[in-house]
Amino acid sequence: MSKPLILVTNDDGINAPGIRFLIGIMRDIGEVVVVGPQDPQSAMSHAITIKYPLQYSIIENSELYHEYSLNGTPVDCVKFAIHQLMDRKPDLVVSGINHGSNASINIIYSGTMAAATEAAMGGIPSIGFSLLDYDHRANFAFTEKYIRKIVLQVLENGLPENTALNVNFPKENGTEYQGLKVCRQAKAYWKEDFDERFDPRNGKPYYWLKGTFTVYEDDDQTDEWALKNYFVSLVPVQFDFTAYQRINELKHLEKLCSAF
Amino acid sequence: MSKPLILVTNDDGINAPGIRFLIGIMRDIGEVVVVGPQDPQSAMSHAITIKYPLQYSIIENSELYHEYSLNGTPVDCVKFAIHQLMDRKPDLVVSGINHGSNASINIIYSGTMAAATEAAMGGIPSIGFSLLDYDHRANFAFTEKYIRKIVLQVLENGLPENTALNVNFPKENGTEYQGLKVCRQAKAYWKEDFDERFDPRNGKPYYWLKGTFTVYEDDDQTDEWALKNYFVSLVPVQFDFTAYQRINELKHLEKLCSAF
Repeated sequence: MSKPLILVTNDDGINAPGIRFLIGIMRDIGEVVVVGPQDPQSAMSHAITIKYPLQYSIIENSELYHEYSLNGTPVDCVKFAIHQLMDRKPDLVVSGINHGSNASINIIYSGTMAAATEAAMGGIPSIGFSLLDYDHRANFAFTEKYIRKIVLQVLENGLPENTALNVNFPKENGTEYQGLKVCRQAKAYWKEDFDERFDPRNGKPYYWLKGTFTVYEDDDQTDEWALKNYFVSLVPVQFDFTAYQRINELKHLEKLCSAF
Repeated sequence: MSKPLILVTNDDGINAPGIRFLIGIMRDIGEVVVVGPQDPQSAMSHAITIKYPLQYSIIENSELYHEYSLNGTPVDCVKFAIHQLMDRKPDLVVSGINHGSNASINIIYSGTMAAATEAAMGGIPSIGFSLLDYDHRANFAFTEKYIRKIVLQVLENGLPENTALNVNFPKENGTEYQGLKVCRQAKAYWKEDFDERFDPRNGKPYYWLKGTFTVYEDDDQTDEWALKNYFVSLVPVQFDFTAYQRINELKHLEKLCSAF
């Protein structure tokens, strides 16, 4: 049987420890194509590059391993890999391992998860992995057996249509994780706070974005609950933004706008 | 009664004709704060700026009108306006009028709609407006009475919790629109195609992103159907990515990952 073809990307950039760890596991499982951002692309969400052209570099090109860097966003990497660099559609797209949480509302800002979602939009099974540890020297060791199990399972059975997986790992405390929970996204919000400083040349203020993350609920069906309790969280992710339950509530606007 | 406080932003940049048109209508309705991107930010999705600090410029500051530009994304504009520049929470956030469609799956790439969604995430009623005409000289005249009606209605009654509105206008054909339809997001996909060119200095290839937009359905409940039939489309938008119907389907992964 031929080896599965796996596309790997991330948003922290192609040299981040998280993607190197993920590549290692994937090379054990299949033929691997890596297309990663040449520079860090955290918090780029589903952005695509339209102001300047894309250029790629070949890092390695051997029989079962092909690695490229691209001067674009994570979503650019997926589009460019699938529609330009690869001869056939991958069997799986994996993104990460992100340095930092993509649980709860963090998904909306995440380049890692945007890459996974873009793949799912194109009908390719996809998984984003994130570790709740921003440290460059974070310990990814405890994630490996979960990643391997989930990836093999998805390669064997695929995923439901229009669905990507958002898998988050707690920051490790020296012991194995408690297990895995299939969850929903917790309700949470980033309240921003801007760190004001002054340019020494002209006294003009400038602002660094920082924020406080607040989770609004402690329901045991949520990803935040799972992570707080040292479980790996897995949220099935879709990309239809329609608030279906609101359509009827707003139907009266049709009448309002016919009465001009 | 005091005038409502309205925040206006967009993704085409603060000097785009679309936002100038929208500002004109809003100044008629309330006290207006504009915080727009200093440069075009199309296709920036929900990206936020973390690699460099934000700086703003004051364009105008009069009694009922305050206009600023910011060196950031549309989502930065909303965060910076609400948490740094404004003394009180706005009663409404409007974004646009975008030059080009944000219907269907375009919403996921859209900076215009990300700004509206960010406001809704902070509990502020918000609406994104888009016109299906990329031309800088596009005619926005037919949109005005719809915008006015919807905005006044939302200021009066608010919006359902966790819901923003995605309003798209067909490219005008010289006649009034047929009316407004409250819709769901149509199933569609951008299939990318990269335009390969060569750098004359070193022969290295570079690639412009272009794509073909394909709508997979022709259901009269969708925004694409409404727009094709010369109706204004309105989609209520939410920001929970959980694919709820898939949670049970994937519960077996919990067991799989407990058997190490």
